[in-house]
Amino acid sequence: MTPQSEDFSAWYNELVIKAQLVDRGPVRGTMVIRPYGYRIWELLQADLDRRIKEAGHDNACFPMFIPESYLRREAEHVEGFSPELAVVTVAGGKELEEPLVVRPTSETVIGEYMAKWIGSHRDLPLLLNQWANVVRWEMRPRMFLRTTEFLWQEGHTAHIDEADAMRETMWALDAYAAVARDLAAMPVVPGEKTPGERFAGAVRTYTIEGMMRDGRALQAGTSHYLGTNFAKAFEIQYQDEAGKLTLAHTTSWGMSTRMIGGVIMTHGDDTGLVLPPRLAPYQVVIVPIGRKEQGEATAAEARRLGAAIKSMGIRVHVDDNRPQLSPGFKFNDWEMRGVPIRLEIGPRDLENGVATLVRRLPTVEGQGKEAVPLERVPEIMPQILADFQAFLLARAETFRGDHTRAVEVWDDFGAQVAEGWALAFHCGRAECEDDIKADTAATPRCIPAEGPAEQGVCVKCGQPSAYGKRVIFGKAY
Amino acid sequence: MTPQSEDFSAWYNELVIKAQLVDRGPVRGTMVIRPYGYRIWELLQADLDRRIKEAGHDNACFPMFIPESYLRREAEHVEGFSPELAVVTVAGGKELEEPLVVRPTSETVIGEYMAKWIGSHRDLPLLLNQWANVVRWEMRPRMFLRTTEFLWQEGHTAHIDEADAMRETMWALDAYAAVARDLAAMPVVPGEKTPGERFAGAVRTYTIEGMMRDGRALQAGTSHYLGTNFAKAFEIQYQDEAGKLTLAHTTSWGMSTRMIGGVIMTHGDDTGLVLPPRLAPYQVVIVPIGRKEQGEATAAEARRLGAAIKSMGIRVHVDDNRPQLSPGFKFNDWEMRGVPIRLEIGPRDLENGVATLVRRLPTVEGQGKEAVPLERVPEIMPQILADFQAFLLARAETFRGDHTRAVEVWDDFGAQVAEGWALAFHCGRAECEDDIKADTAATPRCIPAEGPAEQGVCVKCGQPSAYGKRVIFGKAY
Repeated sequence: MTPQSEDFSAWYNELVIKAQLVDRGPVRGTMVIRPYGYRIWELLQADLDRRIKEAGHDNACFPMFIPESYLRREAEHVEGFSPELAVVTVAGGKELEEPLVVRPTSETVIGEYMAKWIGSHRDLPLLLNQWANVVRWEMRPRMFLRTTEFLWQEGHTAHIDEADAMRETMWALDAYAAVARDLAAMPVVPGEKTPGERFAGAVRTYTIEGMMRDGRALQAGTSHYLGTNFAKAFEIQYQDEAGKLTLAHTTSWGMSTRMIGGVIMTHGDDTGLVLPPRLAPYQVVIVPIGRKEQGEATAAEARRLGAAIKSMGIRVHVDDNRPQLSPGFKFNDWEMRGVPIRLEIGPRDLENGVATLVRRLPTVEGQGKEAVPLERVPEIMPQILADFQAFLLARAETFRGDHTRAVEVWDDFGAQVAEGWALAFHCGRAECEDDIKADTAATPRCIPAEGPAEQGVCVKCGQPSAYGKRVIFGKAY
Repeated sequence: MTPQSEDFSAWYNELVIKAQLVDRGPVRGTMVIRPYGYRIWELLQADLDRRIKEAGHDNACFPMFIPESYLRREAEHVEGFSPELAVVTVAGGKELEEPLVVRPTSETVIGEYMAKWIGSHRDLPLLLNQWANVVRWEMRPRMFLRTTEFLWQEGHTAHIDEADAMRETMWALDAYAAVARDLAAMPVVPGEKTPGERFAGAVRTYTIEGMMRDGRALQAGTSHYLGTNFAKAFEIQYQDEAGKLTLAHTTSWGMSTRMIGGVIMTHGDDTGLVLPPRLAPYQVVIVPIGRKEQGEATAAEARRLGAAIKSMGIRVHVDDNRPQLSPGFKFNDWEMRGVPIRLEIGPRDLENGVATLVRRLPTVEGQGKEAVPLERVPEIMPQILADFQAFLLARAETFRGDHTRAVEVWDDFGAQVAEGWALAFHCGRAECEDDIKADTAATPRCIPAEGPAEQGVCVKCGQPSAYGKRVIFGKAY
């Protein structure tokens, strides 16, 4: 496999296939998510779905075919998505009278039904979510990061006023940051997008940005306050307490299979994937070692231990049915596939009543293999997994810290965004953003929510700074 | 609402909208599944997904756009599905070189990857499943039963030989029958389809058939043994132990949102839906009664009771935030929406320390409202729900028994299939099936797995009977 340091992009493209996360689809830009990759998505989905429901949202399912005319009702929206649309023109053996767009996102079709379902202020807030596939025709496709078809959830809500809609917008952003941090061990930065990076049709767009191990940024989830833009386009209105017809304020927010790409690029190394335990299809793999009678004895012990670990609610796999492969091959295979904890049981381990425990990465400098008494293994495993999860988060935080610097003058800017993020003042002008992008390929990733209040002059053009704080600039996926 | 007896079809069409299960989609034949309907699907999905995983299958996700050429590789398959396809011809602003079919089912695209992933006999069985949306352009669409886009799971597996593939085919059929019986309280009949009713490309098709309250049959899940048909078309082969390249035997099986239509038509009545507790979004609804202080006191008790019932793992809803609606309206509303158990708490109930418990249907003749001491309500609720679930299944079994008869002579056939199912001998000839359909609109629903071995002469043409047992004939959805 190509090493990260040599060609990060090649490393990624080779690894996603080799680790059996995905395969290339039959149509350019599409992907087949294989069981090992899909399980990561299911684990993420279960946690996020629970949060969404606990906060009072209901899941629903809207059609994926949207009449073309719907998209045209919101001018910015159609302009933003037009170049990426896939269009059905023939169905049931006939040319359709009105072409159907395969949804790139569902604001328009859901807006149509919000208008129908909302009558009075009593019907608000209306809190909907759907888990769906969407299609955006990609010019530069990349597995998980930009695929023609991808999976996501899209939340769509309607509110009585801006304040309530903004509360919702920030709730979703917080939920995404928590999922990224707690499950993916990705220490993302939440913040607002500059106007040039807003969702097509939004008043304000918020994002969580993670730093990948090549120093680039990954937008890992977005939440949009749509104001009354879609409410106007689709007549989403309610009777207020005085009986007056009033426009609702809407939001939308989404997190997608792109997150899996984020996990790979936040933690992976030249050996392969490194999966955070909370998203690992197998948190523990047990490899019995030995031939003939010895092999049978260690395999029996591996299965017994596997059952004991499983009964603790841990996802464990016993690698006991590939006799044609050597132990060394199996060790490498599971390391490449990112399994957090490996347990080896050889004939000598069995004699000594121990298993050899190997972490995918040493959590303490110089820490190597460790012999653990067999009967102690199940009881210590939850803590070992929790520690490994915390280690990955801390390591990613350190990495981000090491690759983020305040930049005051333009001469230092290019070098910084070549290896990480620059915290810089910006004037807020779209043309100046364009100039920066043309010169360095970096874009404003977000105005970080937690950045301290500061004023200065634009790193590029010297005009007074906008936003009241520094902006994060970086190259993005 | 139109009564069932007057026009079953109108009753169904009105009820699905009124009960807020669905709304009509913007494109003819599509549906919006609203939260109340989607929750039923989620409950069904959770149970079926658990069974699928426990039996060793892995979930995956294949692209929904299939190159047209893939479908043409299996001759019967493309012939069966061609009239129903939706086709993407434009994407990213350009005419596509090869049109893309939106999947009507995924045998072809999955076959392509099975061929790639299977090398040796050690890779078998390959047990895959996906939860997906599929598109079949419908001429006579009907909410849940036949919609242009619907949700389903599709299992796709590859095996070393016919025996193993047939074991899998029957496993899926058994799982479907169990889900229908245990969750939906639908006493379905499992059996084999006659050749004329087979899936396009299958060697043998198995089905579960339920009887709706108008006496018609609903095919509620199918499982197909595909032999080596798709293996030949896509070169799905493995090296056997001797190193010889051998064709795999494949299966596919699916259950869809159509099941929700089955639940509605198996249990519903003129008052509205009747939901089996295991699929009811709300198993219990509590309606507090009274105005001002009295209303506040009963609402407070309703919330306390709701929390106690919820803590038992029961899905409960307290209807305490619609002061503009009368108690009578709420009772009717929840009955129409099929909630199994209603608890009313009025000021007098509160004085007496009781709640009034009302079942959606009396499970014992003449049984009406029942006063239950408040402190006893949570502890008795699991049994009350289980009894109601069992009652619905038994009622549906009785109904099916009352509407199924052995028919010996053609003169009796039409009358029987007008009100239910006919158990009749059939010669097995496709032309004879066609004659029966032309005369009566009835089709062979299945050769029931559990039917006793019998021989006779064809009810229609008098030739010797095929199949070694009677066939179930009925009109179908």
